Amino acid sequence: MIKFYTGNKNYSSWSMRVGVLLAQAQIAHEETVLRMDGFGPDSNFKRQLRALSPTGKVPLLVDGDTTVWESLAIVEYLAERFPEKHLWPQERAARARARSVVAELHAGFGALRQHCSMSIEAHLPEVGALIWRDQAGVRADVARVVEIFSELLGRHGGPMLFGDFSIADAYYAPMCMRFATYELPLPPQAQAYVERVRQLPGVKAWVDAARAENDFLAFEEPYRLRSA
Amino acid sequence: MIKFYTGNKNYSSWSMRVGVLLAQAQIAHEETVLRMDGFGPDSNFKRQLRALSPTGKVPLLVDGDTTVWESLAIVEYLAERFPEKHLWPQERAARARARSVVAELHAGFGALRQHCSMSIEAHLPEVGALIWRDQAGVRADVARVVEIFSELLGRHGGPMLFGDFSIADAYYAPMCMRFATYELPLPPQAQAYVERVRQLPGVKAWVDAARAENDFLAFEEPYRLRSA
Repeated sequence: MIKFYTGNKNYSSWSMRVGVLLAQAQIAHEETVLRMDGFGPDSNFKRQLRALSPTGKVPLLVDGDTTVWESLAIVEYLAERFPEKHLWPQERAARARARSVVAELHAGFGALRQHCSMSIEAHLPEVGALIWRDQAGVRADVARVVEIFSELLGRHGGPMLFGDFSIADAYYAPMCMRFATYELPLPPQAQAYVERVRQLPGVKAWVDAARAENDFLAFEEPYRLRSA
Repeated sequence: MIKFYTGNKNYSSWSMRVGVLLAQAQIAHEETVLRMDGFGPDSNFKRQLRALSPTGKVPLLVDGDTTVWESLAIVEYLAERFPEKHLWPQERAARARARSVVAELHAGFGALRQHCSMSIEAHLPEVGALIWRDQAGVRADVARVVEIFSELLGRHGGPMLFGDFSIADAYYAPMCMRFATYELPLPPQAQAYVERVRQLPGVKAWVDAARAENDFLAFEEPYRLRSA
């Protein structure tokens, strides 16, 4: 049985990509939530992870004696392991595009990630309005995400980025959470896609679990002193 | 014929990963070097790239009507397109490890990349000694790279990270260039691997072309006023 290790679901955007993919593709697995009590070497979180993985980070996948770290390597592993699930688009050119936008996200969108940290249960439209007003980097990042959504939805006809659900949607799901939390302004087509992502059963399951955590971690919350 | 677009070979570490892979695996391609006259929207570099790719960045691969951007998506595309070249390790668990360390590099090692920018023809041991003394982040990044080299060379027996040459070696080749330019202190096993990488025909071809450019770009040279 595949073992999946995640941090707090409310905060761990990297874990969410893998968790949504596993759930949405209905891949049987055993999940362990490691509470992010801190990222210092003495935290329980790091001590537990270091025993499992060389980087001490989530997400982490363990399949028998194979350990896979880094969300991108994990989704590639799952795509190979379960070819019948068609986790990547089936057509080669589409698959290349999917990998391009996924790799772009893996290394990029730093301003958006820095200023709009993921906290699924938070609703911060006023913070979002200030960020939008003041942070040109966030506006540029959002513009690129919107361009990606628009290009792919137009080309493949929706409802997901490549028609059917794929790794690309799982990868951009945490982005959709940020858009919702901070109510960043999106054109209607992008907004509608975000809503469709939020309605996916695999996303809803993750969001419900995130909300049920009730575990406010101050170091993950630059804008709040407590939960609403 | 596959078209490969690169920036200046002396500076473009992301392009080098793809260039080394193409050369070392002897994949026929047409190469275009786009001089990095600047990264502003009015630069020739950006104007040429924007006409080819949505992100306006190198490396870029065009194969017929398929455009692939982001080095990681490009190497995955090449691995699929040329299965007989075995660009990834053939054994599934090894392949998963290779993708993990490659994805780790795609998104990480920020301190090393920031402080030890790639300039192949430069030799900056004194700058390297200052960086080593003052930048804990660089020391931590190097420690992790050494850990990766050591684990993989031990497990697979060398001479390359996964025995035979693979995408992982192409991906870490620019890192080897940084180690050489700044003479960062490495344990003997890691140093010997760096030397072996520098001797690969695909790496030597890239390095020779980089040295032949004689194109000093000040904005890529935080430590020099001119070439040596």
